[in-house]
Amino acid sequence: MLPFKTLIQTDKTLKLPVYQQIANRLIGLIQEGVLKPGLFLPGSRVLALQLELHRKTVIAAYDELISQDWLVAVPRKGVMVATNLPVIRPRTFRGNASSYTGKAAFPFHAVNTIAAGGPPSSSGMPLIINDGFPDARLAPLNAWVRECRSIIESPRYHKLLMYGNATGSEALRKEMQRYLTNTRGLNISPAHVMITRGAQMAIYLAAAMIIKKDDYVIVGSPNYFFADLCFEQLGARLIHVPVDEEGIDVDAIERACSNKKIKMLYLITHHHHPTTVTLSAARRMKLLEIIRRYKLPVIEDDYDYDFHYSSAPILPLASADHGGNVIYIGSFTKSLGLSIRIGFMIAPADFIAGAANLRQLMDLRGDNLAEQALANLLADGTIERHLKQSNKIYRERRDLTCHLLQTRLGNAVQFTIPSGGMAIWLRFSKKISLRRLSEKASGLGLRITSGEQYHYGTKPQNGIRFGFASLNARELGEVVRILESIIA
Amino acid sequence: MLPFKTLIQTDKTLKLPVYQQIANRLIGLIQEGVLKPGLFLPGSRVLALQLELHRKTVIAAYDELISQDWLVAVPRKGVMVATNLPVIRPRTFRGNASSYTGKAAFPFHAVNTIAAGGPPSSSGMPLIINDGFPDARLAPLNAWVRECRSIIESPRYHKLLMYGNATGSEALRKEMQRYLTNTRGLNISPAHVMITRGAQMAIYLAAAMIIKKDDYVIVGSPNYFFADLCFEQLGARLIHVPVDEEGIDVDAIERACSNKKIKMLYLITHHHHPTTVTLSAARRMKLLEIIRRYKLPVIEDDYDYDFHYSSAPILPLASADHGGNVIYIGSFTKSLGLSIRIGFMIAPADFIAGAANLRQLMDLRGDNLAEQALANLLADGTIERHLKQSNKIYRERRDLTCHLLQTRLGNAVQFTIPSGGMAIWLRFSKKISLRRLSEKASGLGLRITSGEQYHYGTKPQNGIRFGFASLNARELGEVVRILESIIA
Repeated sequence: MLPFKTLIQTDKTLKLPVYQQIANRLIGLIQEGVLKPGLFLPGSRVLALQLELHRKTVIAAYDELISQDWLVAVPRKGVMVATNLPVIRPRTFRGNASSYTGKAAFPFHAVNTIAAGGPPSSSGMPLIINDGFPDARLAPLNAWVRECRSIIESPRYHKLLMYGNATGSEALRKEMQRYLTNTRGLNISPAHVMITRGAQMAIYLAAAMIIKKDDYVIVGSPNYFFADLCFEQLGARLIHVPVDEEGIDVDAIERACSNKKIKMLYLITHHHHPTTVTLSAARRMKLLEIIRRYKLPVIEDDYDYDFHYSSAPILPLASADHGGNVIYIGSFTKSLGLSIRIGFMIAPADFIAGAANLRQLMDLRGDNLAEQALANLLADGTIERHLKQSNKIYRERRDLTCHLLQTRLGNAVQFTIPSGGMAIWLRFSKKISLRRLSEKASGLGLRITSGEQYHYGTKPQNGIRFGFASLNARELGEVVRILESIIA
Repeated sequence: MLPFKTLIQTDKTLKLPVYQQIANRLIGLIQEGVLKPGLFLPGSRVLALQLELHRKTVIAAYDELISQDWLVAVPRKGVMVATNLPVIRPRTFRGNASSYTGKAAFPFHAVNTIAAGGPPSSSGMPLIINDGFPDARLAPLNAWVRECRSIIESPRYHKLLMYGNATGSEALRKEMQRYLTNTRGLNISPAHVMITRGAQMAIYLAAAMIIKKDDYVIVGSPNYFFADLCFEQLGARLIHVPVDEEGIDVDAIERACSNKKIKMLYLITHHHHPTTVTLSAARRMKLLEIIRRYKLPVIEDDYDYDFHYSSAPILPLASADHGGNVIYIGSFTKSLGLSIRIGFMIAPADFIAGAANLRQLMDLRGDNLAEQALANLLADGTIERHLKQSNKIYRERRDLTCHLLQTRLGNAVQFTIPSGGMAIWLRFSKKISLRRLSEKASGLGLRITSGEQYHYGTKPQNGIRFGFASLNARELGEVVRILESIIA
């Protein structure tokens, strides 16, 4: 008889019942070829004695395996390993990789995936210059949890939570209509609204609805790299059009449209990523005319609209006469402190319906509870109060950062004060290698990207987005002090 | 002078400051061509008088528009509408649809999007026979909210929540390793785990990594329709292989592999959707051998593994020797009551890395707060306790449903008792038109699908998935009573 005592070890402290442990182990032994098809196992009394277990436990394991066709009960002979199972070799998961296509390998290490690790700074907290994140410490998360609780305590909440559709919570879409009308002058109904997983899903879905393989798509140069990568993944050929201090070059867009069949234009109207420039009113008007003339589908990514300090933001293209060609995209992710990712797409109703079908293939629908909680926070004014308060703080941090950069780093850097958003587009003098700066900073407890991702598809910029919003005054001071110590 | 009193109406009860209301309206008037480029606006004192507002409010509005380039301040002459803005027509959002590709139109009304509406049943609550949903009333949502609160109250929670990556929360991936090893015998590390938005995102990502246009993909006949639609969206050509009472026909898979270059196999090992059959142990072994021989990439969708009543579930293919070819997919969405959608993909580490890159293009990452809360609920045993309790209840509901169907609907229906899951695959006698049944039921306060989606890509089945898990004994009794009253 096989040494079952050695082969089968059980552990009563595990949550998995002992009989299942035995059953799983027996399956393993069959798979490994130790227990061959046709082999009779010891009677339950014998095995129980060997394993020092109650006989009932062994019987339960055998019954289990008989019910799963691994074992066969042969009348008057006992329990046999089933004969219609081919003998196989030991299992492996880490073995050969699947022969997968391996798409979507990135040419750079995306900064958004920076882990919160690394050596601590002198204050004991790791410092990170991110891409333009909000400060999660300011986010109305307490209010959010309070709303979640109140929702699950409400009668019939289960009906509310169980059902739903891919365009998002009805309550939230209604609140969005009110919110976007008040803040952006959009003339919409809930049928024009789709709630997504952050702005990124809206970009992907809108682009996937519009782009076919080899279509020409106009993007800024530079551009938000995850948008470029997304369009390329969908098979687009990108046409890079310069972005200067007034925003994307509208004349260049017109030339491209008159030369080629352009399938789509992607642009960021406020606080362009990475350069933070805002499209000027004059260009905005001219662009609207081009959009209408060429019936050019546009993705207007307005991810940062709610964070504007210098004056009220310019109204989006989507609020003007665009002939139904503009798909408007935004996000609440930054208002909710990044950990709850809710974005939106505004488009003609039939476009939304198509995008919802597509969305179901990758994500049946959003989290009802989170969407309902956000709807409540919009309805009771929490979000608007949060934006008012945090915009004040972010504005102060922007001003402090600009002051520090100007006075402490001087000629080593160059930047324009952004009218809003959470980052400064900081260009370094050519003498400074950002790669080496990044390495040295890391040794001093500061995580800073070397910035390759910002010139994806275009020429090197020697610049980074200096996200100031997530750092308080003390932290900003320390960050600039570290940079100064390296550069000086 | 233009009748500004009529053209500009303000409302002090709105949250938007009055000066911004004026500014927005002036922009609208410029866009509508009412205020032509070069036109001088009335002085601030005059306009303030007309509008019955404080002069400062009008000055603020003018300053706003000057800062946005809509207006130009001409020294000693006043404020003029900028001349470099082309005159445009009135805005429209509901206008012409964009010239989008319009992919992803479904050939049926997907049952998962059933809205919780319709006429109430006699008990005042609308009754819905869904596709196999859990009962949100049983979900550990209180514990979930409690964990969310405890996370945001913990020190440095903001670091935890702000940063992260597309493979998901590190804490959750570690818990997943433990959980999947204990429950499914998987031999993995956190590098093999990716957290997704439900199982659906895992299916989409895995398929997008593997499938190129015109690749052959084997699926069951019938099959989970959202999987079929997903693969078709990605350009696959589907080969439908029969599913019988032992699961998918493995001999047919082998024949297909020997005939054609097959790029991928998709299968559901436990409680197949829609038929609820579980792959037999014998076929499972043979399939493993085929997978290794042909190096056939496989998506093993095991969405329902945690809900098994008749005996312990068979171990997944992924726990056996599959030569690194099996991508294993599952979900916690049903444990969390559908409103919090967290699924997972288990695959070789380099496959996970590629899938994470792809995922970022459509969804930068998951909700950290939700993922961390789930990690805590796994660690403290809440999820396992919930599964134990709810499995007991679902088992009783399954048995009650089978009893009611057998005794009350008799020859009109046919079904096999499923060994687990949340639905019964209920085939109706040919005399019964499901479309008419659905219509009549609707009039009696019962929502039931006519079932076209279940035979997508294959022959009509005259069957539906009868989701029993979300209905309690009283509701199940009422549902069957309504069906009986229609059929009898």
